[in-house]
Amino acid sequence: MHVTSEQRFDDGVLEREFSLGEITGFLWTPESTSTPAPLILISPPPLGLGKMYPRLAGRARYYVADYGFAVATAELPGSGDRPRLAVLDQARADLRRAMEVGEPVTGKIVDALILPLVEKAVPEWQATLDALLALPEICGPVGYEGGIISIGVRLAAVEPRIAAAGLFAGSFVPTVMFEEAREVTVPLQVLLQWDDEGNDRQAALALFDAFGSKEKTLHANMGGHTGVPEYELDAGARFFARHLK
Amino acid sequence: MHVTSEQRFDDGVLEREFSLGEITGFLWTPESTSTPAPLILISPPPLGLGKMYPRLAGRARYYVADYGFAVATAELPGSGDRPRLAVLDQARADLRRAMEVGEPVTGKIVDALILPLVEKAVPEWQATLDALLALPEICGPVGYEGGIISIGVRLAAVEPRIAAAGLFAGSFVPTVMFEEAREVTVPLQVLLQWDDEGNDRQAALALFDAFGSKEKTLHANMGGHTGVPEYELDAGARFFARHLK
Repeated sequence: MHVTSEQRFDDGVLEREFSLGEITGFLWTPESTSTPAPLILISPPPLGLGKMYPRLAGRARYYVADYGFAVATAELPGSGDRPRLAVLDQARADLRRAMEVGEPVTGKIVDALILPLVEKAVPEWQATLDALLALPEICGPVGYEGGIISIGVRLAAVEPRIAAAGLFAGSFVPTVMFEEAREVTVPLQVLLQWDDEGNDRQAALALFDAFGSKEKTLHANMGGHTGVPEYELDAGARFFARHLK
Repeated sequence: MHVTSEQRFDDGVLEREFSLGEITGFLWTPESTSTPAPLILISPPPLGLGKMYPRLAGRARYYVADYGFAVATAELPGSGDRPRLAVLDQARADLRRAMEVGEPVTGKIVDALILPLVEKAVPEWQATLDALLALPEICGPVGYEGGIISIGVRLAAVEPRIAAAGLFAGSFVPTVMFEEAREVTVPLQVLLQWDDEGNDRQAALALFDAFGSKEKTLHANMGGHTGVPEYELDAGARFFARHLK
């Protein structure tokens, strides 16, 4: 892990940009702290870290400044400046075409859109976790939150260092993930946008139902995909504070 | 309103038992405060204040001590030491009989069980509100939370002093309440117990959907009717803090 730049903010947060092989990412930590901070991984939407930076950094700095967490995010495979993934580009083109002509988005398209990303992203998050937990100022237990729910499902199911996960009930969930969800047993807080245009509400409720976790909370809010209310930031922080501290 | 007894706790909370005509209740306020405190009404389950006191007082004192609210609760019509209501007793007997022999709980039983209670309880809450808001140490805006969701629906729909409501998606909701829910426009936080034995999950989701409020959040948690997780106390307090302060 190489730190490529760093910046100190007057809210007491140190931001470091890092690279780890082909992966680039950001790490936010308390500038001064006597004890290691529990880590939260934020898996970004696949729109490129550059575009997402303001939202991610705002969220991360709130977690660090107000709750004393360390927070890291990393560019997903095929996103931002990383090499394109042909299989994903093809799936996205198929999705666009289906939506343009009003055809149903088939399970085949959804699988092609999500599963290769899950296959690549999950081991990358595990490698990033290895590198981050080697830093003396960071410790477990680790929280995960992210936008592509299937990545969160797989990671929470296979990676024992993840102790709690905040998930966003999004669209395009491969059928196999409903099975994998039963393997997830850590505490969950799941956000659902009630009027999410591209999202099947009943499927989202069924996925919530499928999780094996004894403690799981669904927060359903009004509005579309991008309309998550600001107060869910605080609710997320308090969820992680309960489980990581 | 007559104060019949008072007690000071070492968390800085003053508890007063009061009577208002036939109604008895409790009021919890900060013992010392320079400005009036926004009020939260807690409508109790119809099991008698005596039986519910430990839970209600714990909840109220948390709101007062940690968030500076004033909190009041009052005995529902036909509950505790108040005169029985023949119509409710009859409906409860009909409900028990239907459940014992495994017959469906008809809309007629549900209406008889809930609507007379709503008719009586809502004007009582409004009279209690008049009396409480006349006290110099209490002010609006007012929050409401309570267990019988139909009382909350009617009160939030007709009483403009209610600025936010925390509701518990319970069983036995008369059909007419789905219509009245459309008239509710204040911010809502609705608790749903995902595995509530006596509760129809789909009906609860439909009622949540029916509310006219632009800001409404559903918190669904695992477990049965009495299994609401402790952390929802904090989530409730923060919901009211956003809207009453």
